[in-house]
Amino acid sequence: MKNDQTYSLLNGINCPGDLRKLNVDLLPEVCKELRQDIIDELSCNPGHFAASLGAVELTVALHYVFNTPYDRIVWDVGHQAYAHKILTGRRKAFSTNRKLNGLKPFPSPDESEYDSFICGHASNSISAALGMCVAAEHKKEKDRHVVAVIGDGSMTGGLAFEGLNNASSTPNNLLIVLNDNDMAIDRTVGGMKEYLLNLTTTNRYNRIRQKFAQLMLRWGILNETRKKSIIRFNNSLKALLLQQPNIFEGMSIRYFGPFDGHDVKNISRVLNDIKDMTGPKILHLHTIKGKGFEPAEKSATVWHAPGLFDKETGERIVTNTKGMPPLFQEVFGHTLLELAKKNDKIIGVTPAMPTGCSMNIMMKEMPERAFDVGIAEGHAVTFSGGMAQDGLVPFCNIYSSFMQRAFDNIIHDVAIQKQNVVLCLDRAGLVGEDGPTHHGAFDMAYLRCIPNLTIASPYNEHELRRLMYTAQLPDKGPFVIRYPRGRGSVVEWECPFEEIPVGTGRKLRDGKDMAVITIGPIGHLTSKAIVRAEAEGASIAHYDLRFLKPLDKDLLHEVGQNFSKVITVEDGVTEGGMGSAVLEFMSDNNYNPKIKRIGIPNIFVEHGNVKELYKLCGMDEESIYQTIKSQL
Amino acid sequence: MKNDQTYSLLNGINCPGDLRKLNVDLLPEVCKELRQDIIDELSCNPGHFAASLGAVELTVALHYVFNTPYDRIVWDVGHQAYAHKILTGRRKAFSTNRKLNGLKPFPSPDESEYDSFICGHASNSISAALGMCVAAEHKKEKDRHVVAVIGDGSMTGGLAFEGLNNASSTPNNLLIVLNDNDMAIDRTVGGMKEYLLNLTTTNRYNRIRQKFAQLMLRWGILNETRKKSIIRFNNSLKALLLQQPNIFEGMSIRYFGPFDGHDVKNISRVLNDIKDMTGPKILHLHTIKGKGFEPAEKSATVWHAPGLFDKETGERIVTNTKGMPPLFQEVFGHTLLELAKKNDKIIGVTPAMPTGCSMNIMMKEMPERAFDVGIAEGHAVTFSGGMAQDGLVPFCNIYSSFMQRAFDNIIHDVAIQKQNVVLCLDRAGLVGEDGPTHHGAFDMAYLRCIPNLTIASPYNEHELRRLMYTAQLPDKGPFVIRYPRGRGSVVEWECPFEEIPVGTGRKLRDGKDMAVITIGPIGHLTSKAIVRAEAEGASIAHYDLRFLKPLDKDLLHEVGQNFSKVITVEDGVTEGGMGSAVLEFMSDNNYNPKIKRIGIPNIFVEHGNVKELYKLCGMDEESIYQTIKSQL
Repeated sequence: MKNDQTYSLLNGINCPGDLRKLNVDLLPEVCKELRQDIIDELSCNPGHFAASLGAVELTVALHYVFNTPYDRIVWDVGHQAYAHKILTGRRKAFSTNRKLNGLKPFPSPDESEYDSFICGHASNSISAALGMCVAAEHKKEKDRHVVAVIGDGSMTGGLAFEGLNNASSTPNNLLIVLNDNDMAIDRTVGGMKEYLLNLTTTNRYNRIRQKFAQLMLRWGILNETRKKSIIRFNNSLKALLLQQPNIFEGMSIRYFGPFDGHDVKNISRVLNDIKDMTGPKILHLHTIKGKGFEPAEKSATVWHAPGLFDKETGERIVTNTKGMPPLFQEVFGHTLLELAKKNDKIIGVTPAMPTGCSMNIMMKEMPERAFDVGIAEGHAVTFSGGMAQDGLVPFCNIYSSFMQRAFDNIIHDVAIQKQNVVLCLDRAGLVGEDGPTHHGAFDMAYLRCIPNLTIASPYNEHELRRLMYTAQLPDKGPFVIRYPRGRGSVVEWECPFEEIPVGTGRKLRDGKDMAVITIGPIGHLTSKAIVRAEAEGASIAHYDLRFLKPLDKDLLHEVGQNFSKVITVEDGVTEGGMGSAVLEFMSDNNYNPKIKRIGIPNIFVEHGNVKELYKLCGMDEESIYQTIKSQL
Repeated sequence: MKNDQTYSLLNGINCPGDLRKLNVDLLPEVCKELRQDIIDELSCNPGHFAASLGAVELTVALHYVFNTPYDRIVWDVGHQAYAHKILTGRRKAFSTNRKLNGLKPFPSPDESEYDSFICGHASNSISAALGMCVAAEHKKEKDRHVVAVIGDGSMTGGLAFEGLNNASSTPNNLLIVLNDNDMAIDRTVGGMKEYLLNLTTTNRYNRIRQKFAQLMLRWGILNETRKKSIIRFNNSLKALLLQQPNIFEGMSIRYFGPFDGHDVKNISRVLNDIKDMTGPKILHLHTIKGKGFEPAEKSATVWHAPGLFDKETGERIVTNTKGMPPLFQEVFGHTLLELAKKNDKIIGVTPAMPTGCSMNIMMKEMPERAFDVGIAEGHAVTFSGGMAQDGLVPFCNIYSSFMQRAFDNIIHDVAIQKQNVVLCLDRAGLVGEDGPTHHGAFDMAYLRCIPNLTIASPYNEHELRRLMYTAQLPDKGPFVIRYPRGRGSVVEWECPFEEIPVGTGRKLRDGKDMAVITIGPIGHLTSKAIVRAEAEGASIAHYDLRFLKPLDKDLLHEVGQNFSKVITVEDGVTEGGMGSAVLEFMSDNNYNPKIKRIGIPNIFVEHGNVKELYKLCGMDEESIYQTIKSQL
């Protein structure tokens, strides 16, 4: 039991049922305690911070008004759902959040009956919730409410629009709660944001609405039973007064708001008023990302996932990284700017991840040449294809697991036309605490089948720079560079640029007993395992394949001709991955070595830190060493 | 030279430059000839018919007003672009359209400088065109116009919305022409359609606008120089009068229209007026799919791609199919209905392909249990995931090449949560005349890496029925069934239902010298090749693997233990496909057979009829026979 004084209400809430027993006047206090609990927990166990602080009141109101878990709340991106976790029986376990075998990073039906649907990738809530509405209707559970809670950032994703489009024409009673804080991880961009901003800030309407409400109160017209019709009237009034284009109403989705998303009593009242209205509806709440913790309010991007911090002073506890190798992300960001200065055809494209991938470095210096297109991975790739078709060289940076959303765009809008688009897959391989929705496990398998692609992965920071340099040279066609989250292995990363001939790997070490083939930075770790095995007398050749496609035929012929034992190591799924490509080559060329493939097994790997997960997958130094020993 | 009388103008147009020399008053005549030419050509060489008829006037107007190819026209789905092809130097070659080595089925930059971008999959035009706007700006080619021509069907795709959202906030002068005929292949569905309909049919506005224009004329105010401001005023007038919600204006995209899309002179005038306005803008044209050919106007879905027809009587020349095996599509459609009658959890979902995949059979009888969600593949899958999460069993039917657009939805919204969604991949394998954008070549490679999936392909119609039956049984999890376009091999297809144990293949024929492993209907063709080889004395075992995932371990152990020579045959890419899975199994289990993989090579296979393409890929009966012989 945590401090009784601070958490006098929260200590009594073990499930939403307990919350619902409280008087509505106590809700602000519950919110206060919840917010403090999140701050307490996150200060010593890093996680997604600012988004959840902003969603405290709406979370409390939802669980207060709706009969969860019978009623469904579908979160759109679990960043905002920590208060939800705490209220739904996971408060005591919260210190294990994001840790191996601990609470999952995002809501998941596996973990709690209150988690209706998975929510690691943005923009899926409306579609999934609509499916649940259809299920409720079909199963004659017509009293079930379904609520999708979606941020304004997620609203830019095409999937959200597809969901809206379908929701407006399918019979359903879906409630969409728009948690509008003007932010994704970075600031939200695009027409939809402007649009929502207009809805929010139209003074004329707000003034008139206020006066209207005051009049109603004065005349005694405003009372509980009449609220519904007043809200409806409010809505029409707005349309009448503003000739304000309302996308949602235009699509037959009733619109309510905007309301202050931190006025928990008012939100609860409004939810109560509208929850039984038939037909799809949207409730627009204006919230502040990081609400209630001053440093986070001021700098919500930094405080999206701030790491450890001092909850009293608000100071972030930053590890001293002096003398450590740089993040691959930093190398990418600086190198992109450097290349862009030399080659004026280079353009940067990121779907809402300028800070995460470090494209903000280029954006700051060349704002007209780097585009944040919002959460819209498909568009990011097709947009890049359009630019490349007319002669530019876009570097389109998308996290590996999010690139899954642009799979067809890569095939249809880039690969068929052989454009020189450089697809930079950040967060390739196991990413750690963000878990199964975020691991970049599949990219080598899903990209390898696409004709015309070049696919490469750098061994270290120098190689990343060289690959980036190579990719932007004339006539290179579509060029994929995959690299992981986190630090490389070379402190002095600023090497001169140098072209790497496409489709060439390199021999890192000579040997006789066995060939080990790696791709990407996992080669570094593998080389340590090799050194250990060699210290015990073995002679092991190490090849850095570097290009998954096209394969280095000379290198592989050398391996095929000289070795009867081969181990492949990759930070990706073994089914269809690099090891599989080596198998195909050996088979096609009548070589017959015994091949052992090390990589991510065919499961959705859970969350935990990268070292732990590597061990689980048999991909850590010790496991690789053991595998080498066993195969010798 | 075609008939001089009928084509007196068209015969003189070898490129858009010739068109632009004509007086604007001749444009209606040009359109008439173009339309006749399309009817003539298509009556004897099947292709996409109704969409192109509807786009004749807008095509002529675009090439008349814009300086193509310097100005870019980006078509959204090439169905509508036949007039464009004819006007851009491909009239003489038009009889080769869609044939092997002939004109490509969809515009392609490979074929003509007038084809700015590829357009086989819907909804990509705005994103690609926006990229071209950025390129023009960046390259200081500021006089270049870029036009995206998008149908209302394509507007339901999330990618189009992502493009709009970005276009509204990125500096650009993009013109979007909305070719609104209320149809995709089937009727357009969803909120956007309703929305556009409202824009189109608001009588009050149209009446007032007309009166206003008449007044202007009477007062002599309407003249060339003032037209631009009048159009602008018209726009504001509409907003003022209607309080009509306009999505596009809400996103800062200027809106013009709706106009009659068959009034070529008026469209040309409007295009001239607005083409140099800065900022993104949308021109809304109302067209009739099949315009000018009565049977097509009446029944646009049937006439989307009608096959051969009598151009005088309008009668379609339907091949007598009596005694032939049914289409896999027909078997799917009837079987789905049959199963849905037995299992009330079954729901049908199709993204705008009810006719193509035959889900219209279920829709007709159970309209409340089958959903056409519009061109929105991602949503179709996530929506299915939502339904399955709450206990239903959705059969979500999407063509294999379009399923590429739902790749992440399969992983994130279905596979991680192990829901019982049945993903039916129609048009798997080579599809023929629709070419590289439409071949279902990649699905086995891109799906195989996803954990928790079951992936199967039926040998024939009976197996399709059995797999569909099996997939909807309790606790089957996510279940993929891939099958090709076209006819199977069993005339009497209505077999009783029977469960197939998941992960089991079957031995079709015993043999000693070699094992041939196939998956799907290509096994039928392979068996013929085997019979030929056996007739010459060889003894060949034939296994139908049936499940790509999970693999039938017993079957593969049997092969590994008994054969030193193995051939795999699949109607999919060999890189990462079924053959690759067999290689992995053999390697993982220390078997060492010589394996030859037959399948689609790592190129984008062009268009042509399926037989021709099979031959090109070494997958026809003769090639398989030869391969067997060479490997014995």
